[in-house]
Amino acid sequence: MGRRWNGWGDESYVKEVSDHGRALIHSIIGQPEPLPSVTLEQVTAQVPASRLPQHPLIVTDAEDRVRHARGQSFPDWLAMHSGEFGFFPDGVAYPETSGQVRELLDFAVQQDFEVIPYGGGTSVAGHITPQQSQRAILTIDMSRMNQLLDLNEESQIATFGAGTPGPLVESQLRARGYTLGHYPQSWELSTVGGWIASRSSGQQSLRYGRIEQMFAGGRMETLHGTLDIPTIPASSAGPDMREITMGTEGRMGIFTEVQVRVSRLAEEEKFFVYFMPNWQAAKKAVRELVQQRVPMSMMRVSNAKESKAHAHLGTKESQFKALDKFLRFRGLDDNRCMLTFGVTGTKFQNKTSLRQIRKVLKSNGGVGGVIANMMGTIWAEGRFKFPYLRESTWEEGIAIDTLETSTDWDNVDRLLNDIEETLENALKDENEEVMVFTHLSHLYSQGCSIYTTYFFRCADSYANTYKRWQKLKYGASEVIARQRATISHQHGVGKDHAPYLEAEKGKLGMRVLHTLADDFDPDQRLNPGTLLEQGKSYK
Amino acid sequence: MGRRWNGWGDESYVKEVSDHGRALIHSIIGQPEPLPSVTLEQVTAQVPASRLPQHPLIVTDAEDRVRHARGQSFPDWLAMHSGEFGFFPDGVAYPETSGQVRELLDFAVQQDFEVIPYGGGTSVAGHITPQQSQRAILTIDMSRMNQLLDLNEESQIATFGAGTPGPLVESQLRARGYTLGHYPQSWELSTVGGWIASRSSGQQSLRYGRIEQMFAGGRMETLHGTLDIPTIPASSAGPDMREITMGTEGRMGIFTEVQVRVSRLAEEEKFFVYFMPNWQAAKKAVRELVQQRVPMSMMRVSNAKESKAHAHLGTKESQFKALDKFLRFRGLDDNRCMLTFGVTGTKFQNKTSLRQIRKVLKSNGGVGGVIANMMGTIWAEGRFKFPYLRESTWEEGIAIDTLETSTDWDNVDRLLNDIEETLENALKDENEEVMVFTHLSHLYSQGCSIYTTYFFRCADSYANTYKRWQKLKYGASEVIARQRATISHQHGVGKDHAPYLEAEKGKLGMRVLHTLADDFDPDQRLNPGTLLEQGKSYK
Repeated sequence: MGRRWNGWGDESYVKEVSDHGRALIHSIIGQPEPLPSVTLEQVTAQVPASRLPQHPLIVTDAEDRVRHARGQSFPDWLAMHSGEFGFFPDGVAYPETSGQVRELLDFAVQQDFEVIPYGGGTSVAGHITPQQSQRAILTIDMSRMNQLLDLNEESQIATFGAGTPGPLVESQLRARGYTLGHYPQSWELSTVGGWIASRSSGQQSLRYGRIEQMFAGGRMETLHGTLDIPTIPASSAGPDMREITMGTEGRMGIFTEVQVRVSRLAEEEKFFVYFMPNWQAAKKAVRELVQQRVPMSMMRVSNAKESKAHAHLGTKESQFKALDKFLRFRGLDDNRCMLTFGVTGTKFQNKTSLRQIRKVLKSNGGVGGVIANMMGTIWAEGRFKFPYLRESTWEEGIAIDTLETSTDWDNVDRLLNDIEETLENALKDENEEVMVFTHLSHLYSQGCSIYTTYFFRCADSYANTYKRWQKLKYGASEVIARQRATISHQHGVGKDHAPYLEAEKGKLGMRVLHTLADDFDPDQRLNPGTLLEQGKSYK
Repeated sequence: MGRRWNGWGDESYVKEVSDHGRALIHSIIGQPEPLPSVTLEQVTAQVPASRLPQHPLIVTDAEDRVRHARGQSFPDWLAMHSGEFGFFPDGVAYPETSGQVRELLDFAVQQDFEVIPYGGGTSVAGHITPQQSQRAILTIDMSRMNQLLDLNEESQIATFGAGTPGPLVESQLRARGYTLGHYPQSWELSTVGGWIASRSSGQQSLRYGRIEQMFAGGRMETLHGTLDIPTIPASSAGPDMREITMGTEGRMGIFTEVQVRVSRLAEEEKFFVYFMPNWQAAKKAVRELVQQRVPMSMMRVSNAKESKAHAHLGTKESQFKALDKFLRFRGLDDNRCMLTFGVTGTKFQNKTSLRQIRKVLKSNGGVGGVIANMMGTIWAEGRFKFPYLRESTWEEGIAIDTLETSTDWDNVDRLLNDIEETLENALKDENEEVMVFTHLSHLYSQGCSIYTTYFFRCADSYANTYKRWQKLKYGASEVIARQRATISHQHGVGKDHAPYLEAEKGKLGMRVLHTLADDFDPDQRLNPGTLLEQGKSYK
C-alpha cells in the first residue's frame, strides 16, 4: 500500500461522490470552487536544515520530515494542500526496540531536543504537529514495533509492539483464532499504542469495550526510566496506573510494548440496518436496549439529516429510489432515522440478542425486513471508507470535518441540537450554508457519544477557508464545553482541544494533570503543547 | 439496630457454629482456648483528653472516640478485645453537608490537626486507624450524609450523600424501582463514598461491574478547594478524574456527594449451586463461561477445602449427610468443588443465560439437579452473614481472617497453592495447624480474584496471637507481592497493605502516587500513613 502523503489512507483507493449525493450537497451549500494543491516536491523543497545532532537512529531526509509533520485534522489537511506547513520535525527515528526508544529519550535530554511520539499519524486534534520551538524536534515513529510478541491463550492477553496498526493487530491475532475487536474509523492506519495514548474507542465498543477495557498493561519509557504496568485483572490497590497513563498523549512517556485483552474469534457476526419512524422513537429504542443490557457489538442511530445524507452518498440513485419507495410504503417519511447494529457471538447468543433487539425496534415502529441484512452488510464493507470521501469532495472544493462528544441521555437532544444549529449558523455572516448531520454511537446506560459531520464550501483562499473552519470548530467546541459534555469522546485532546479541557476537568483536575506532567517532564520536552496548554499554571 | 462496638454488625444477630462445623475445625487446628475480652466501659475509661480545639461540629466524648478508633481488620479486632487500642481520634465530627466538610478541612489547616474520613468503619486494612502523631486527629464520620439526593431516570444516575450505607442505598433506590447492585460482603455497614475511596467490588460485579464502572461523578472536598467531577459517559479527553480520585483513600480529599450508575430493578434474579467433580473442571468451566461473555450476575467457585468447610459450617449435620450422599451417588467424591452463580435480568435473558451455563457446567461434569435452586437460595439469604461468624468462633478461642488478591488465569493455580501452603505452614514453628480454604469470585476474561480464609487458634496472650497473625498475613502478602498479583482486589491498601504496594506499582508508579498526594496534601494532614507509607520518597 502506498500511503497518501497529504490525505487519508491508501493512494489506490478512491471513494467517488455519487451524482445524486453531489446534487444534495450542492442543493444545501451551493456550487463549490476547488483550491489548488501543492505537490510533495514543492513541500520537500521548503524543508529547512535539521537542527538535530547526528545519531544512527535519526533520519533527517526532507520527505520523512514532511510525512511526519501533520496528522489528519482539518488544519493539517489545509497545511498539506496549501503547502503552508508552519513547522517540520527536525528528524524522524524508527526504533525497533524499547531499548532504542530509551536511548533516544536519553539522547533528547543530553542534547536538549524535543520528542513527539508518532503512531499512525491519524490524529484529528493536532497531537503530533510540531510547534515553533527554539529546540530541535525529533518525531519517534513507532511503526517498526509492529509485532505480536506473545499470546497467552489461557488469560487471553496479547502483547504487541506499540506501533502495530489495526490491520496487523487483527491479522496476527486471527491467524491464532483471536481478535482484539478495536475498530476506530482510523483502524487502517492507527496503532495500538496510539489508541492507548489517546483513549480511543472503536465501532464495536458495545461488545469489546473502549481501549480502556482492553488495555491490560505494558511498558512506557519515560524520562525517569521505564514504567512497567503489570497485567492484573482488577485491583483496589490505589489508583490504577493504566488509567493514569492512558490519555497522556506522549506527555508522560512513550508506550513501547502493550498488553491487550483479546477474545476468541466469534462463531458468527452480523450487521443490520433498520429504519425508525423518527428521532424520538429511535433514541428511545437504543436507550432501552442498552439499559436492558442486551448483548450487541455495535449500535448507531443516525438523525434524519444523516439518514438522508448517507442514503445519497452511499448508494446509486436507482438504489436510493427503490429504498425510499419501500420505506414510504411501510409508512416512513422524511423523518425516518437509520439505525445500524451488529451482533457478535455464538449463533445461540446472536439469535437471542436479535430476538430482543427486533422486539424493541418493532415496538418503536422500526422497519427492517428484506433490506436489514443487505444494508448491514454494505455498512460493514464500507465501515472504514468514509475518511476517503474527503479526498473526492476536496477536489471539487467541498470541505468536510467532523466533531464528537458524549453526554448523558437527558442532555443528548439539547446538546445535539445546539451543536447542529451552531454549525449551521456559523457562516451566516458570509451568507454561507453548512450541511450538517449527526449520529449517536458508543451507547452507554448513562448516555452516548454524539458524532457530527459538516460540509462547507472552501473560501477563495486557504487563509479564508481556515477562518471558516475556525468559526465552525470553535463555535461548536464552546457549545460542548458549556454543556457538561466532553470535548472528545474518542479523538483525544491534542493541541486543538486543549483550550477546552478545563471546562470538564475543573481547575483542580487541571492541577492534577499539570502536576503529573511537570513531574515527568519538567522541561516540557515530551510532545509540548499537546493535552495541556503551555504557560498555564493551576497552583 | 445496635451496632457492636468491638466486632461486626448488628448486636442482635448471632451466627452459631454448627456442631459438626466445630468438630471439623477442631480436627484440623486442635482444641482452642479463648482470650478474655475487655468491656466498652474499660476502654472508654482509658481515653485521654482531647487535643482538638473546640468547634460546634466536633464531638469529643470518649465513646464516640472509641467507636471510631478501629475498623474490622484482625489487628483491629485484637485491639477491641484486648483493650490495647494504641491511639484514639481526638474527636469525631458528623457533618451534614459538603459545606460543613469544607469548613472542617479549613479548620484543620488553620488549627494544624489531622483528618481521617470515616464511612462505615468496615476497613479490613487499617484505613481509618489513627497513628501516633504530635498533631490532634479528627475523624470525620460521613454517616449523616446518607440520602438519595437525586435520581435521573433517563440517564440512570443517582446522586447520594457519600455516607450512605448499602441498605440505605438500596432501599431508597428500590422505592423508585431502581438498584445500584453493589454488594460487597460489608454491605450492611459500608458506604458508597467508602466504596469509591477504596475501589470496592461487590458480589454481583459480573453484572453491575466494580465500583469503578458505577462511579459516574461527584464532589470531593480537598485542601485546595472543591473538586467537581462531571458525569460524562466516556471520554478520551486525557486521564479520567474519576480514576485518579478513586482509591486515594482519603489522601486527596473527602468525597461528599457522589453520582452512581443505577439500573432498573430486574424482572427476575436467581441463584444456584452446582458441584463440579474437581478443581480443574470447575476452573475450566467458569473461565469458559466468562470468556464467552455469558451474561451472569455472580459466579464463585470454592476449592475442595472450602466446599467441605462451607458444607459443615453452613448446614446441620443431617443436611450435610443427605447432601453428601446425593453427591456421592452422582459420582462426586471429596475432590468436589462448589460453584455458586446467579442470573439477573429479564426472564428471557435469564433463561438463555441458564441454558448456556448449564451446558458448560454439565459438559465439565457438574451436578446441579434438585439441590441447585435450594442451595442457591440459602447462599443468597446468608450472603452478608459470614462476618458474624468471627464473633462466635472468637468466643471459643478460634481466630479467623481472610485475604484476597487477583491475578491472570494462567497464574491462578500457582498463586492459590502458594498462598494456601504459606498459610498452612506459617505456624509450624509453634506446632500449630491452620485451617485454610479458598474461592475464586469476581471473574474476568483475563483472570479472577482469589479469596482465602484461614482459621487458627488464639495463642496464650493477645501479644502472641498478634504474632501468629503477623506470620500468616506477612507470609501470604509476600507471596502475593512476588507473583505479579495485586495486594488487594477489593479491600484496598490502608496501612496494612501499604508496604506491598511498590511491588505492583513499581518505583515510577509510586512516584506518581506520592507526587499527587504531596501536591494535594503537602503536610500529610489527610489520613497520613494510609495508601502511602510515610517517610518514603521516589524522586
